[in-house]
Amino acid sequence: MSVTAAQGFRAAGVTAGLKDSGKPDISLVVNEGPSSAAAAVFTSNRCKAHPVIWSEQAIKGGSARAIVLNSGGANCYTGPEGFAATHRTAERVAEHLGIGAIDVQVCSTGLIGRLLDEPKVLAGVDSAVAALSPEGGLDAATAIMTTDTVSKQATAGGDGWMIGGMAKGAGMLAPALATMLVVITTDADLNSATLDTALRSATALTFDRLDSDGCQSTNDTVLLMSSGASGVAPDVAEFTEALTMVCRDLALQLLADAEGADHEIAITTINAASENDALEVGRSVARSNLFKCAIFGKDPNWGRILASAGTTTAVFDPLDLDVAVNDVWVCRNSGVGESIDLVDLEPRSVTVTIDLKAGTHSATIWTNDLTQAYVHENSAYST
Amino acid sequence: MSVTAAQGFRAAGVTAGLKDSGKPDISLVVNEGPSSAAAAVFTSNRCKAHPVIWSEQAIKGGSARAIVLNSGGANCYTGPEGFAATHRTAERVAEHLGIGAIDVQVCSTGLIGRLLDEPKVLAGVDSAVAALSPEGGLDAATAIMTTDTVSKQATAGGDGWMIGGMAKGAGMLAPALATMLVVITTDADLNSATLDTALRSATALTFDRLDSDGCQSTNDTVLLMSSGASGVAPDVAEFTEALTMVCRDLALQLLADAEGADHEIAITTINAASENDALEVGRSVARSNLFKCAIFGKDPNWGRILASAGTTTAVFDPLDLDVAVNDVWVCRNSGVGESIDLVDLEPRSVTVTIDLKAGTHSATIWTNDLTQAYVHENSAYST
Repeated sequence: MSVTAAQGFRAAGVTAGLKDSGKPDISLVVNEGPSSAAAAVFTSNRCKAHPVIWSEQAIKGGSARAIVLNSGGANCYTGPEGFAATHRTAERVAEHLGIGAIDVQVCSTGLIGRLLDEPKVLAGVDSAVAALSPEGGLDAATAIMTTDTVSKQATAGGDGWMIGGMAKGAGMLAPALATMLVVITTDADLNSATLDTALRSATALTFDRLDSDGCQSTNDTVLLMSSGASGVAPDVAEFTEALTMVCRDLALQLLADAEGADHEIAITTINAASENDALEVGRSVARSNLFKCAIFGKDPNWGRILASAGTTTAVFDPLDLDVAVNDVWVCRNSGVGESIDLVDLEPRSVTVTIDLKAGTHSATIWTNDLTQAYVHENSAYST
Repeated sequence: MSVTAAQGFRAAGVTAGLKDSGKPDISLVVNEGPSSAAAAVFTSNRCKAHPVIWSEQAIKGGSARAIVLNSGGANCYTGPEGFAATHRTAERVAEHLGIGAIDVQVCSTGLIGRLLDEPKVLAGVDSAVAALSPEGGLDAATAIMTTDTVSKQATAGGDGWMIGGMAKGAGMLAPALATMLVVITTDADLNSATLDTALRSATALTFDRLDSDGCQSTNDTVLLMSSGASGVAPDVAEFTEALTMVCRDLALQLLADAEGADHEIAITTINAASENDALEVGRSVARSNLFKCAIFGKDPNWGRILASAGTTTAVFDPLDLDVAVNDVWVCRNSGVGESIDLVDLEPRSVTVTIDLKAGTHSATIWTNDLTQAYVHENSAYST
């Protein structure tokens, strides 16, 4: 269902021949209205791909009628010709739909520094338009996959309205194993300013807290489009909650499908002096290769967790920290706690809890372990 | 030669039985004077091991007569008993030498969160004192090894004076694959304030620019002791230059012996608006797992280099960067440059040059690639 779960959207996924594998590589999602209110967030990387440069400008009016996405090429660092290719792709979609190019968002994912095969992309757009369907959600979610092993979709809703979303990649909005692209649709009738606030709130609590390998993509995009087709204007708090649910669902699907990972790790910092302190500590642990290798090796190595916490500016007493792995408090008061033999790291899902004893705030960062398979996947081919 | 290359020093390395392997594990270096001027720098990690907490206080008077180092246990997060063990180790050395414990520096390296076997350590100190010799440099350098495959020693000097040093571990002063311990001796006659300034200058340009895996150890220590036995007080600039040479030599030996690495990578950022900008860009690339995997895979993936640069606040135009790998300018003006096929990544030594076109400053950060062997070594056993 995903992006076609909400009323007023059609979608398609087709094969344009951009991928050597011959798998589907062009997705199109069209908002049939009546509303075209939209909001988006983009990578915070200063080195942005051409589709991001285009889409950031195009969304400024708070409106989007369609989004076209290609896998099989990031169109990043491809010079003026690359930007022109993005622009002509938007124009081709606009022509078919009888709208302005400014109402077309564009996303790309794949290898950096290689020009897209523009004739193939444009022919792909033609096929995608012809294939548009109110049941096209799964096809669209499939055609944006790169190293993803499964497509990612999620839905949520309220009384008379729906939200649907699709995603590809793994990593956090910004950091990413591969580029993260997310398209979310809703038939709730909300203006673009409300959508923008809701989207920023939802992504801050979900995609922003996903830090698979600390690497930040040039192409990350999350777009939210409203058709208003339900005629329902839900309570904003209720809408934001449902949107956050969809984002969290997609984020955890990305985490579970991260390249080469053996474990999904939720690092929760509790009793922090501020939410920022909790996030800083969680991120520092999530970015420790030594910690991530230890989890791969099924070793609840709390020394590496303390060593990471020690690199932050968060408020805490370095000699009075508690750490639990899978709820076993292996470190108490910065010393040996319960036996590490009580910790079972066979299951994929791992929790780490760090008690800073400095306040009342808490936050969770999600990451993966660092495995030989990750190194293999990211050394054996270019992205 | 190393730490006994300079006049006025004796050293020893003995086996106390702290390591399961039965290899040497206690090193002792004694400064016989006439001077006892000394300076040290320590890990910037807030979670410090007990020997670091002790040594930081003990060096405050600018004097050190001896340093005792053990491998086979980090004595970190071992509670009040751990600090007492460090203190009693210093006292035992002091007793033998007829000096105050405050003049004894202590270093430990090994597993965090496990108490040292103190009787073994103290018996090891007794044996080390008995084994002290003006030819003991190599033994001392050997007994501090953990996952090191070779001992690391270096010397330099001027007219009538010498500097010698030994090191173990890999990583940067702070970040570390394993803990980095460095002991440097000199018979030059300089006071502790001068030694401190020279040491901070030398480490800032060498160990501080080594970033093997971005992880920061709890035990890192660099100690510089002067015996003054040469009777020569060299020009401070000349001394600092020689000291920097010794530090660079040791740093590159650490890099070359980093756990599981296949490549040594020198990342030089040129034409930066400031030295800090150059360092920030270099560090961001050095910490990109995707970049490090690419080098392991012999892929001159400049897209991953730009994507890392894009996460920094350094002054540059994201659309006007040049990047060379092994002096082949594979990226020009943030677009495709010379063919990547011209880049030979078979040799261990790799250079990356990033031209920011924003000023006149430059700086080099050294790192390693990320390999399956690194993941194996750091998942298969605790550190």
